[in-house]
Amino acid sequence: MLDPKIDAKIQTSFGKQSLMATLGARLVKINAGAVEIEAAITPRTLQQQGFAHAGLTFALGDSAAGYSALSLMALDQEVLTTEMKIHLLAPGAGEKLLARGRVIKPGRRLVIVQSDVFAVQDGKERHIALLTGTMMPVTI
Amino acid sequence: MLDPKIDAKIQTSFGKQSLMATLGARLVKINAGAVEIEAAITPRTLQQQGFAHAGLTFALGDSAAGYSALSLMALDQEVLTTEMKIHLLAPGAGEKLLARGRVIKPGRRLVIVQSDVFAVQDGKERHIALLTGTMMPVTI
Amino acid sequence: MLDPKIDAKIQTSFGKQSLMATLGARLVKINAGAVEIEAAITPRTLQQQGFAHAGLTFALGDSAAGYSALSLMALDQEVLTTEMKIHLLAPGAGEKLLARGRVIKPGRRLVIVQSDVFAVQDGKERHIALLTGTMMPVTI
Amino acid sequence: MLDPKIDAKIQTSFGKQSLMATLGARLVKINAGAVEIEAAITPRTLQQQGFAHAGLTFALGDSAAGYSALSLMALDQEVLTTEMKIHLLAPGAGEKLLARGRVIKPGRRLVIVQSDVFAVQDGKERHIALLTGTMMPVTI
Repeated sequence: MLDPKIDAKIQTSFGKQSLMATLGARLVKINAGAVEIEAAITPRTLQQQGFAHAGLTFALGDSAAGYSALSLMALDQEVLTTEMKIHLLAPGAGEKLLARGRVIKPGRRLVIVQSDVFAVQDGKERHIALLTGTMMPVTI
Repeated sequence: MLDPKIDAKIQTSFGKQSLMATLGARLVKINAGAVEIEAAITPRTLQQQGFAHAGLTFALGDSAAGYSALSLMALDQEVLTTEMKIHLLAPGAGEKLLARGRVIKPGRRLVIVQSDVFAVQDGKERHIALLTGTMMPVTI
Repeated sequence: MLDPKIDAKIQTSFGKQSLMATLGARLVKINAGAVEIEAAITPRTLQQQGFAHAGLTFALGDSAAGYSALSLMALDQEVLTTEMKIHLLAPGAGEKLLARGRVIKPGRRLVIVQSDVFAVQDGKERHIALLTGTMMPVTI
Repeated sequence: MLDPKIDAKIQTSFGKQSLMATLGARLVKINAGAVEIEAAITPRTLQQQGFAHAGLTFALGDSAAGYSALSLMALDQEVLTTEMKIHLLAPGAGEKLLARGRVIKPGRRLVIVQSDVFAVQDGKERHIALLTGTMMPVTI
């Protein structure tokens, strides 16, 4: 089970990310090494064809991956994305996007992470993006 | 010089991207194979430490790269990002972010692109991100 | 079950890759959408610290991913890597490297693939690399 | 000018990489933050269509990038690739491949690097690959 102090640290950090509020994103699950974030697809977050914008997809996927890494770090550590690659697999069509981040390889100096992002419509999930990247622990 | 119809197509496409308006982004330069987009760093687009959020940096860099590719395509073509990698080099601190996209290798089936994103403070630019990715032409 | 003609096409293609022979690599499993390649770690394929060279790890992982994609294509199609990212997770120490490729998302224009590479010692596998990339079908 | 001790360290390290000898690679230039490696395209390093294998292209590009990073590090440091992305832009056709690595962003904890790989025929260079990645200094 996740240490409640780690859970609180992640909630607090997420709350400070004003872009997450601007995008309508919310934390839906925090486990050790696996975090989920979702956001409704709204008229304010679209690309030119009316689908969810890749910037939204990236922001959710990157944050879910980052907090997955942070959930395994010490209480006095912060996390930074050093690099992240996103593959866009299908259009972001539906009611909301759901990003599931997880740790592939923990490490003292670097943490390798992955996120899958799904577009959800009528309770059905479609895999629309795969992110793979590197997180770096930073002692505050 | 850029065909005015291509310039108009890019302006129209950008105008339809509601996320760009939500992020306060604007097109500042459109040349053949090279497009610039900027956005002020505002209290609505930050990460937890008060710097520009990586989601903002990605959205600007990806869009500048995509429109660079679109500027070299036929009038009846659209562009899709298939994959994009971002390296975050420094914190996004300053008044605004400026993304400069360019085409590395044009192609009929795929276009390889790159973007540099700078944080601008008092007229001084700091290189904060490098994006490299693949765009795919789609005939409408 | 895999069409024997597809199996034969992959065997033939692999046989033409002289670098695979130079690296001592061999195909160990061909299923639809999932291919495995292995190579002994020899005194001829090392980096400066005596571990398997990242060039070997990449070559095996990229080929396993590419043949996974090819296993799902039509008989008259070839496959090209357009881009590939490798994360190196641990040193390549052991008797051999084993690369397991698989298709994440098939497609007519692009196929998204992934490979895991393991270092094998005394029958025990250690995950040493994760590759994610894009394959393009080419009609011969 | 490059410290002769750094030059010697890189020469020694390269000499220990047995895969480089197996691939026929040699160091052709070592400057601070910029290193070049080349290899003839031989019947032993091809892919199935008779072009230079992507594994060769990657090995040269990754090594040139890694030694570019090492050229800026302290004498008691080694370098590890943590992740590397390669875009393949054109077939590797010609007499030899030449990889030019350079440092994009030095750093105490991570160094961001890039390599361009060229196929050379009759003295003419064709850009066939672009690599972007992350190197980590390791104190020996």
